[in-house]
Amino acid sequence: MSRDPSEEPARPAKAAKPVRRRGRPARAEAAEGPGARERILAAARTEFAERGYDKTSVRGIGKAAGVDAALVHHYFGTKEQVFAAAIELSFAPALTIPDAIADGGEAGAGERMARFVFGIWENPVSRPPLLAIMRSALTNETAATVLRGLIERRLLPRVAGELHVPDPEFRAQLAASHLMGIAMLRYVIKMEPMASADLEEIVAMVAPTLQRYLTEA
Amino acid sequence: MSRDPSEEPARPAKAAKPVRRRGRPARAEAAEGPGARERILAAARTEFAERGYDKTSVRGIGKAAGVDAALVHHYFGTKEQVFAAAIELSFAPALTIPDAIADGGEAGAGERMARFVFGIWENPVSRPPLLAIMRSALTNETAATVLRGLIERRLLPRVAGELHVPDPEFRAQLAASHLMGIAMLRYVIKMEPMASADLEEIVAMVAPTLQRYLTEA
Repeated sequence: MSRDPSEEPARPAKAAKPVRRRGRPARAEAAEGPGARERILAAARTEFAERGYDKTSVRGIGKAAGVDAALVHHYFGTKEQVFAAAIELSFAPALTIPDAIADGGEAGAGERMARFVFGIWENPVSRPPLLAIMRSALTNETAATVLRGLIERRLLPRVAGELHVPDPEFRAQLAASHLMGIAMLRYVIKMEPMASADLEEIVAMVAPTLQRYLTEA
Repeated sequence: MSRDPSEEPARPAKAAKPVRRRGRPARAEAAEGPGARERILAAARTEFAERGYDKTSVRGIGKAAGVDAALVHHYFGTKEQVFAAAIELSFAPALTIPDAIADGGEAGAGERMARFVFGIWENPVSRPPLLAIMRSALTNETAATVLRGLIERRLLPRVAGELHVPDPEFRAQLAASHLMGIAMLRYVIKMEPMASADLEEIVAMVAPTLQRYLTEA
């Protein structure tokens, strides 16, 4: 059901391409080895996941990756840009939601969306980075802007493109908001009975709601 | 529709009753004046709202209230206990949700719940403290525990008591999760089109969902 994001190749994130080539001789870059960029990105992802946006520093990311902070700047630019690259990597599993909704036609689209999203949340590998993204976006304006941009650019148009209802983006957000709220109660605040509820029971209740939002005019 | 929490009297919060009477002579307490407790509570609420749980300190609350940090400890105990008192005050408007659901019978319960909760969020006075509570609970384990306790003790049983469906607490949380998720998208992450959507359009879509959760077996 869910993709394990650790299986995703650490491909160059789009938001991270424009880098400032500053204060770093090419020789030193070569000395760090060809895997330095990927190591930095992995370290950034872990640091942001564990500390949140506010408490993460470029220096700390460099330290965790075993490189100088200058090399982090060299590859990714500012802290905001490092975050954009890390968030895009962590968000990769969610970017296939449109396919999950579309594959199989309108019937069952709500249930497929619910199962797919809960699949990401229930997976112990993909949950922490997703949690970190949400926490950062809810507490830091810059992080919220980065997440909003990623969703508005990469996810929302594709989901809306699969829907045949009025205001498809609004409908997609109604569905997403419900799943987001359940995730908060179940995985973050851990409120009972939601935290321990059987996933099948949740899907049974929520799927008809999503189906209505996604397909009923 | 919404209650202005600033109109709520700054009554002693239940969670704040057991205080540690330490390191503070009764004479100094008297010198601070009879309004000191209320001033401290108001300052705590503002500090937690503006800085979040992690960045708020008892010293900072004392400073904002114009009293010594020791007096804050004297009245409320630990930072966690000050937070519990502040959260309970900020959460007061939400504690009347059960009445909003019950008044008028089953028909329209979903719409009344939606209107009541959005009324609190749309009110510029009650939104910031509510936002602060959510942010704190999503980023700090202690804050989450305090909020969870407050809801489990004071809100959930009363809402569930009004419902005539199987698993009434689970149903109440399904409804609450949806409103919470919309609030995140609309007021925190400010994602379009949800952020600018007409409130009536949102209520029209969401009310039938809540109605189903709250009333259909």
